[in-house]
Amino acid sequence: MAEGNRYWRLDSYPDGQDFASAIHLYDGPLPEIDERELLVKNLWFSLDAGTRMWFTSRTDSYMPPLPLGSPIMGFVLGRVVQSRHPGFAEGAVVRAYGQWADYSRLAPDAGNLWQVAHIADMRQHFAILGPNGWTAYVGLNEYGRVRPGETVLVSAAAGATGLLAAQFALATGCRVIGIAGGETKCARLIKEFGLTASIDYKRGDVDGQLKQAAPDGIDCYFDCVGGTLLDIVLPHMAMNGRIAICGLISTYDQKERVGPKNFDLILMKRLTVAGFFSPDFYHRGEEINRLTGPWLENGRVKMAFDVTQGLENTLVAYAKMFTGGNFGKTMVKLTE
Amino acid sequence: MAEGNRYWRLDSYPDGQDFASAIHLYDGPLPEIDERELLVKNLWFSLDAGTRMWFTSRTDSYMPPLPLGSPIMGFVLGRVVQSRHPGFAEGAVVRAYGQWADYSRLAPDAGNLWQVAHIADMRQHFAILGPNGWTAYVGLNEYGRVRPGETVLVSAAAGATGLLAAQFALATGCRVIGIAGGETKCARLIKEFGLTASIDYKRGDVDGQLKQAAPDGIDCYFDCVGGTLLDIVLPHMAMNGRIAICGLISTYDQKERVGPKNFDLILMKRLTVAGFFSPDFYHRGEEINRLTGPWLENGRVKMAFDVTQGLENTLVAYAKMFTGGNFGKTMVKLTE
Repeated sequence: MAEGNRYWRLDSYPDGQDFASAIHLYDGPLPEIDERELLVKNLWFSLDAGTRMWFTSRTDSYMPPLPLGSPIMGFVLGRVVQSRHPGFAEGAVVRAYGQWADYSRLAPDAGNLWQVAHIADMRQHFAILGPNGWTAYVGLNEYGRVRPGETVLVSAAAGATGLLAAQFALATGCRVIGIAGGETKCARLIKEFGLTASIDYKRGDVDGQLKQAAPDGIDCYFDCVGGTLLDIVLPHMAMNGRIAICGLISTYDQKERVGPKNFDLILMKRLTVAGFFSPDFYHRGEEINRLTGPWLENGRVKMAFDVTQGLENTLVAYAKMFTGGNFGKTMVKLTE
Repeated sequence: MAEGNRYWRLDSYPDGQDFASAIHLYDGPLPEIDERELLVKNLWFSLDAGTRMWFTSRTDSYMPPLPLGSPIMGFVLGRVVQSRHPGFAEGAVVRAYGQWADYSRLAPDAGNLWQVAHIADMRQHFAILGPNGWTAYVGLNEYGRVRPGETVLVSAAAGATGLLAAQFALATGCRVIGIAGGETKCARLIKEFGLTASIDYKRGDVDGQLKQAAPDGIDCYFDCVGGTLLDIVLPHMAMNGRIAICGLISTYDQKERVGPKNFDLILMKRLTVAGFFSPDFYHRGEEINRLTGPWLENGRVKMAFDVTQGLENTLVAYAKMFTGGNFGKTMVKLTE
């Protein structure tokens, strides 16, 4: 283990989607670990659109800005190569909040590290029993308050969290409409994941497509996108509908702030619009996994993966998430 | 009773606040009543800002447009002068959904008519145990989810519903900040109604005033106003705050729709924004009155009235509500 550790570092706050000018790959030494820490060789790490909020100097967002010069954090799935913690043997597979790097230095006592028991299926467990699953479950149930028989709309339904929200809603007995970009993605949502209908925002006339897919209105909108799409959706909400705002990915790199023109429909239609944030639920992970775990085990819910090979290709994969290029969970694979 | 019945009629949809060109006073015959109906001499009727939504051709508001040529409806407090209903004797005082007129023809079986037992205090009962009170109570508790010790902000705090919301929040053990226009109103809110602080939007720098009055943020915003004020309030919301949208009075006569620029703070601060509409709770009136009635009886909650004498002066009083000219419940008095 005399080798080094490549890692991605934030050098400036990116302008729009120009990540390559702002985030660079560096060579560093292999991290040294303290007592009760682990050194983990990253096998995979996950890219999450929400992290875009870190890469701004805005101080009023839901994440404080990542200080310039910081290594970039992310969820990793890796193997313990050195352990100074009695609870973890070398060779164990863990998922944790680590670094976009070859290795992660991790402190299990910090509470954001979980052992992965099902090695054969490790990526499914990583994806469904982690933050994407927690966000989807809590958003849909506690903020979206979905009930069987209701009509649920999910934006970014081909994204990791959206894909789980859509499937959780199906498993709850809802009619589920997914919004995604492109004919292929929309067809996959129906054929592979069983959605009731899908809406291709790239085809245009989202309003007309919504009218057709949800003639009686939408009871719950699980929204990852915000922006103009939200404005188009608002008039299609049913009375007493709920909008669970999981993300506003269309607005993260906007310079000018704009609210939905149809904001007043929140009153007119007695809607409830609620923002929520995944890290608020991390401490409830085990509880939520007991509820969603059976769906993973009986095959009702599965994740699709969008894999990019090689640490050096991270930013290409990251940018794809903001242009709708990915389907499912975007992951970087570090081993051959 | 051979006399006639003057009534206000909607002849066109008003442009902005030009009500006089659109709504006119007519002379009609005394209404004839059917079996199980009442003829009520209006003693008072109430003007409610929310009715502005009726007077538009917009079909997606929370009230269908009032058809042109219709007599204008409103809450009346009156005395039964003719009864063909076994439950109501002539001379009884009732509050009901009647007409802006000398007389109202009412059908108790329609479910929006209540007998007033406390004649001496009839206006307080009319105001607190009716729609304003129901709106304030349900909005504050079920949408605003206030808890003792929290900081509650109420806009249009000198309006009928706002004044009750502020007092209900005080009675619940909250710190209550009221927004109103002008020094006199702001002083009354504190001196007469016991509010913790008040904010004079006419003084300007509402942002600075909010910073001073709520340095730790606002847990619940009971909003009757919407528009730019809401945009100024959003950055002052505390994490996990709730915004109960009771009305959007600043936007009702706007031609262009604009949403709050700070909409994304709903996500960043994990806020819940909920619209609600008083008539949805009318059937729960008795239940709510059992909860708020004790506050009326023990004097913890009271209404202020803004009285205009004479049916013919109705529109003057109505317009005052949109320019912040009133304090408390705006009522038209029909008797000397």
